[in-house]
Amino acid sequence: MTFQSNNWITLTSDFGLTDPYVGVMKAAIAQRHPHARMFDLTHDIPVYQPQVAGFWLRQCWRYFPKGSIHLAVVDPGVGSSRKMVAMLLNGQLFVAPDNGLLDPVACDESDVIWRVFDSAEALGCSTAKASLTFHGRDIFAPLVADLSMGKVSFQSLGTEYPAPCSSTAKRVMTIDHFGNLLTNIPADGMTREGTTLAIRGQLLPWVQTYASAAPGSLVALTNSWGLLEIACVQGNAARELGVEVGEPVEFAGPPPRTTGH
Amino acid sequence: MTFQSNNWITLTSDFGLTDPYVGVMKAAIAQRHPHARMFDLTHDIPVYQPQVAGFWLRQCWRYFPKGSIHLAVVDPGVGSSRKMVAMLLNGQLFVAPDNGLLDPVACDESDVIWRVFDSAEALGCSTAKASLTFHGRDIFAPLVADLSMGKVSFQSLGTEYPAPCSSTAKRVMTIDHFGNLLTNIPADGMTREGTTLAIRGQLLPWVQTYASAAPGSLVALTNSWGLLEIACVQGNAARELGVEVGEPVEFAGPPPRTTGH
Amino acid sequence: MTFQSNNWITLTSDFGLTDPYVGVMKAAIAQRHPHARMFDLTHDIPVYQPQVAGFWLRQCWRYFPKGSIHLAVVDPGVGSSRKMVAMLLNGQLFVAPDNGLLDPVACDESDVIWRVFDSAEALGCSTAKASLTFHGRDIFAPLVADLSMGKVSFQSLGTEYPAPCSSTAKRVMTIDHFGNLLTNIPADGMTREGTTLAIRGQLLPWVQTYASAAPGSLVALTNSWGLLEIACVQGNAARELGVEVGEPVEFAGPPPRTTGH
Repeated sequence: MTFQSNNWITLTSDFGLTDPYVGVMKAAIAQRHPHARMFDLTHDIPVYQPQVAGFWLRQCWRYFPKGSIHLAVVDPGVGSSRKMVAMLLNGQLFVAPDNGLLDPVACDESDVIWRVFDSAEALGCSTAKASLTFHGRDIFAPLVADLSMGKVSFQSLGTEYPAPCSSTAKRVMTIDHFGNLLTNIPADGMTREGTTLAIRGQLLPWVQTYASAAPGSLVALTNSWGLLEIACVQGNAARELGVEVGEPVEFAGPPPRTTGH
Repeated sequence: MTFQSNNWITLTSDFGLTDPYVGVMKAAIAQRHPHARMFDLTHDIPVYQPQVAGFWLRQCWRYFPKGSIHLAVVDPGVGSSRKMVAMLLNGQLFVAPDNGLLDPVACDESDVIWRVFDSAEALGCSTAKASLTFHGRDIFAPLVADLSMGKVSFQSLGTEYPAPCSSTAKRVMTIDHFGNLLTNIPADGMTREGTTLAIRGQLLPWVQTYASAAPGSLVALTNSWGLLEIACVQGNAARELGVEVGEPVEFAGPPPRTTGH
Repeated sequence: MTFQSNNWITLTSDFGLTDPYVGVMKAAIAQRHPHARMFDLTHDIPVYQPQVAGFWLRQCWRYFPKGSIHLAVVDPGVGSSRKMVAMLLNGQLFVAPDNGLLDPVACDESDVIWRVFDSAEALGCSTAKASLTFHGRDIFAPLVADLSMGKVSFQSLGTEYPAPCSSTAKRVMTIDHFGNLLTNIPADGMTREGTTLAIRGQLLPWVQTYASAAPGSLVALTNSWGLLEIACVQGNAARELGVEVGEPVEFAGPPPRTTGH
């Protein structure tokens, strides 16, 4: 398994868009790699929650071609002795701080290669004057620029590393802009077994689309990532249920009839 | 009237920027059409309000050259039997779900061609594995990529369709980032008749610019889209008036004198 | 000192991303200058606060190469008789309304050339149908497009102008997405003198990185811009301290010992 860059770089962070952090990180990439094509996945990962970045990267990487590099910076340990990791999967590279961010991406994948290295090593191929507090701009950006240009190879980074993996309880992983509750449960389980979802003791009818029940109904459906999701038709499920990220979700008995068509 | 692509594609949605929905939709476009040049108009249309997307597209399209495609996805009916529409106006294409979103763009235009088609037809020229809940990524994105590349022609989409149009009451159509109240009233009416605006029984002085009255004053002016707008100088008119989208606005008698220069 | 464009244009404004103002401003630039490469610094400058835009531009411009143009539009006086300014510094151009926005960028720089001109002059090289309320789209955008293309030269704009400069009290200049308080105090002062920071009478321990103290600790550190910053480890300092932009900050006696490693 090798990496052949196509010059695409995706960016995921908890930097927000209120400050110029993302703009300056992009400038650092573009200065070294003028032909980089950058895609923002999101910069609104909840601050200091690397696992949410990993959840989203796990869903998104399949929509990018081989040769893409995915840089994710949610990095509460920046400037400490925490290491950095790079991961090769299906011809795509992932780069992040070594804080568990990439674990959800690698989990369930059989053909993954990890390498771990420290910031000083990464510095060897990038800038000499890194700050202690903004490695997104000073270390990660030049590193992914160099990887994308082929000036640095994945194989040259640090040492190989066994892929970590841990199973996760069924739960709400993130709440999206619409107030939909995205779980980490593959939808297969549900459709095969004729079960439905329960959250806070409430059984949810199973529907195919957001338009399959009356406005205001709470429903469960298979979302566009192949995961079970809880939605309120034309409403906001998180507000209706008063639920936050981490809330447990369970499979339950036969679903009640849907109220819609 | 024909369509000659210039590779520009604008994007308007209610997806927000908190989740990676927009990033993945762009990847779906760029994978099929590597030379697409994408412009975000806004992804913060209030959720499930296609008419606000239409209001903004109506104001914005003139700032884009012939050959541009405008994709707008505010789509509460995604996955249902709702159809899709495409519209040709002044050498530019507009693509949206068939839920009235494009009506404000077409209204008052004499030279518009509409075509209506269903998602399965669109699928013919795009992906075979569409989700039921994210047509922005799975159907609209590949369709506009193909239209922009010239692989699919506007004329080949579904069947022609009479342009719908309905007159709208004078009202606040949207509230912008500054708290300005943007109405749907062309400014001609006001300047020609020497009238002013009334909202909640309050008569507003007519000024030329945001800087033409004392800070804190509520004023009416012609905005940069040629529409009447209600603003609070260096303040927030929506908060001052406690007004929301949909609030009626009326023409009224002679304006009070402005308090500024 | 001359200006040789590299086609890079950065954008800073208080327009927000909720409305299509930024998208249409970019279209106005791209229509005139198809090869422009645009970078968003931020569009979430607090409305009507040009000095915050200037603070951020002062930190950011060094991360861009010679030949870049920085357009900043925070413009409460739009449409009035306020003039426009352009500034040449280290081979980079800055363009803004003449309202003090660029003062923080020029302050402490010895080799700066300013030119001042009015909108009608700028119009000479741009569009003939400018609105009175959106010069970002109608005047600034075509002007920076023409400057970046070399169709208009910096030297041809209006008249030369002595650089304004005023010293500023030590204070919180902005609060970032993480709730960190960014001051305007160069970090040299602190490290050289062995002092620490005081805010609201509270002495803060001095640390090297966000990870150098226990979660929840309030700390002072040198940030990635070389300025003193007040942070709450893995928390939100602005919320902890109840502090807003403008809060005074002082140097104080020997710092308390840090609680972390």
